[in-house]
Amino acid sequence: MNWESNVRKVVPYVPGEQPTGKVIKLNTNENPYPPAPGVEALLKNFDVSLLKKYPEADCHTLVSALAEKYNVKPSQVFVGVGSDDVLAMAFLTFFNSEKSILFPDITYSFYDVWASLFKIPYEQIPLDDEFRIHPEDYEKENGGVVIANPNAPTGVFMGLDGIRKILDANRDVVCIVDEAYVDFGAESALSLLDEYDNLLVIQTFSKSRSMAGLRIGFAIGSEKMIKYLNDVKYSYNSYTMNSITLEIGVEAVRDDAYFRSTCEKIIATRERLKGQLRDLGFEFQDSKTNFIFAKHASVPAEHIFKELKSRNIYVRYWNKPRISEYLRISVGTDEECDTLVANLKEILN
Amino acid sequence: MNWESNVRKVVPYVPGEQPTGKVIKLNTNENPYPPAPGVEALLKNFDVSLLKKYPEADCHTLVSALAEKYNVKPSQVFVGVGSDDVLAMAFLTFFNSEKSILFPDITYSFYDVWASLFKIPYEQIPLDDEFRIHPEDYEKENGGVVIANPNAPTGVFMGLDGIRKILDANRDVVCIVDEAYVDFGAESALSLLDEYDNLLVIQTFSKSRSMAGLRIGFAIGSEKMIKYLNDVKYSYNSYTMNSITLEIGVEAVRDDAYFRSTCEKIIATRERLKGQLRDLGFEFQDSKTNFIFAKHASVPAEHIFKELKSRNIYVRYWNKPRISEYLRISVGTDEECDTLVANLKEILN
Repeated sequence: MNWESNVRKVVPYVPGEQPTGKVIKLNTNENPYPPAPGVEALLKNFDVSLLKKYPEADCHTLVSALAEKYNVKPSQVFVGVGSDDVLAMAFLTFFNSEKSILFPDITYSFYDVWASLFKIPYEQIPLDDEFRIHPEDYEKENGGVVIANPNAPTGVFMGLDGIRKILDANRDVVCIVDEAYVDFGAESALSLLDEYDNLLVIQTFSKSRSMAGLRIGFAIGSEKMIKYLNDVKYSYNSYTMNSITLEIGVEAVRDDAYFRSTCEKIIATRERLKGQLRDLGFEFQDSKTNFIFAKHASVPAEHIFKELKSRNIYVRYWNKPRISEYLRISVGTDEECDTLVANLKEILN
Repeated sequence: MNWESNVRKVVPYVPGEQPTGKVIKLNTNENPYPPAPGVEALLKNFDVSLLKKYPEADCHTLVSALAEKYNVKPSQVFVGVGSDDVLAMAFLTFFNSEKSILFPDITYSFYDVWASLFKIPYEQIPLDDEFRIHPEDYEKENGGVVIANPNAPTGVFMGLDGIRKILDANRDVVCIVDEAYVDFGAESALSLLDEYDNLLVIQTFSKSRSMAGLRIGFAIGSEKMIKYLNDVKYSYNSYTMNSITLEIGVEAVRDDAYFRSTCEKIIATRERLKGQLRDLGFEFQDSKTNFIFAKHASVPAEHIFKELKSRNIYVRYWNKPRISEYLRISVGTDEECDTLVANLKEILN
């Protein structure tokens, strides 16, 4: 079959397991709380006959709601099918250089997958032993920079002074700051947008807005940057966001009180879990996300991972250099975390 | 702003206008009937708390429903965000050759947009003056073939003997048959799948299943081909289809009686409209789709287009070589088509 010689062969990203049945699922950083209550009412009353028509190509209702929430112009907002879609479009749009793009060696494991898919050269810059990013490492010629902040799966947040240094050193390329986890107590680079036209901030509804199942991500940047992104989007698929998603997304953005209350609950559970894990002999950098990236002082991570799984508790483990001694534990409800801790006690004894 | 030098600059596809308010919209080939009645019940009872979790990455519920419906294995089915997403992924996956891919000069105007976006060389093969595809024109070295059948915006259907000739002459490349409009009386190339491992058939829920607003498209091909497509999909966005869409899609596939009845209604209206348009002095090739691509014997298309628009009746017009004398008129309800015809009578007098 010669047609295979023309195939783009890739090593795809492997998402976390999605077990069904009665399990405690702390492996994919999902939010343990349901979406904003208005979402249910909206679905019940959705006018199904609308589905026969194409959705808004420019997604303006959702774009406008986000613009209002983040105090920018609608022409500065781009939405897509989860932040993965937005990030992929941004890679395709902005990283057309012969020079390598730069991102940390330990970070969201989709970055090198997109670079390979689109044949973008890349260089992975090592984090230090405490998983910190050193901005001066990004002061070299490159075709673009991608920083997850807080970083994943480490959970480590770099202050905006660090982001500023990277932006200052890279005025001639696009710098993406991927803020998938920013709402759990970190600080957004959105405040730097007026100063840096090379900055693109990307966020998602999958974590802090309890909507991993709905697939909404967004980017905020200069009007010029968003125009380029939209041009590529319209060259790929004019209608990426379906009519239901657009309506529900608006509702989720509008209910700011609910959004803040669930984020606060998760932060409280996370801080509690930090203490419990420390008491059990785990070590970790401080996390500003909805997960903790932890290593046990004496027991191998893979052993703990397998033991937990046999008890129907799922956390995330990567058998990869530098992180094979770590578990990434998503913050669930207090009850879920208590069950996790009780089981860890048994496993570690 | 030097970052602009790295931008992938494209000339995006321009979708048909989406006017709001009280208009008769016959410009984007939408279905005038609502989706299957079960869809409404399903939305009303959808468990919103599911949205906090990621959807099925492999979309297996929808994939299985389609496999059952089309009598293939689930491993032969790929689903995406409308057939545009599926086609774009297929271009990205299968057209990695230095040789030009081939498609007609008059066809779905997204093909050259995707080729440009992904830097795939392409050659447009002229249709004859009656808008027919000649299979022997595709007997030349190439990197792949794409045929819309029935073709758009012409509405002309080529029999499966023609598709066979193209497949026989191109065993070493992937041949995509884009069947967006096949359910309105044409014949699908799905029956050829067992014989041709170079064939990929792509269809959509946007037209015959009244779900342009939901964004579902699918591809059926050999297991090997679908595996390659999924690898690229997992390298782009692991979760393209949201949880609601997956459930609703299954419901739409299962209600085969409703599906057939709306298709039959549209076919009946189309045949009636053909007679009415002929009486008004329009000429067109026979259409097996939910639209008619018609030229008036004496009145310029652009004039008719503008006059209709001023009366809040939208049809599609392209000011492009070879088709600038044609209007593409989507088949609406009988009532909508009667209003169209009444207005055309006034305009043409």
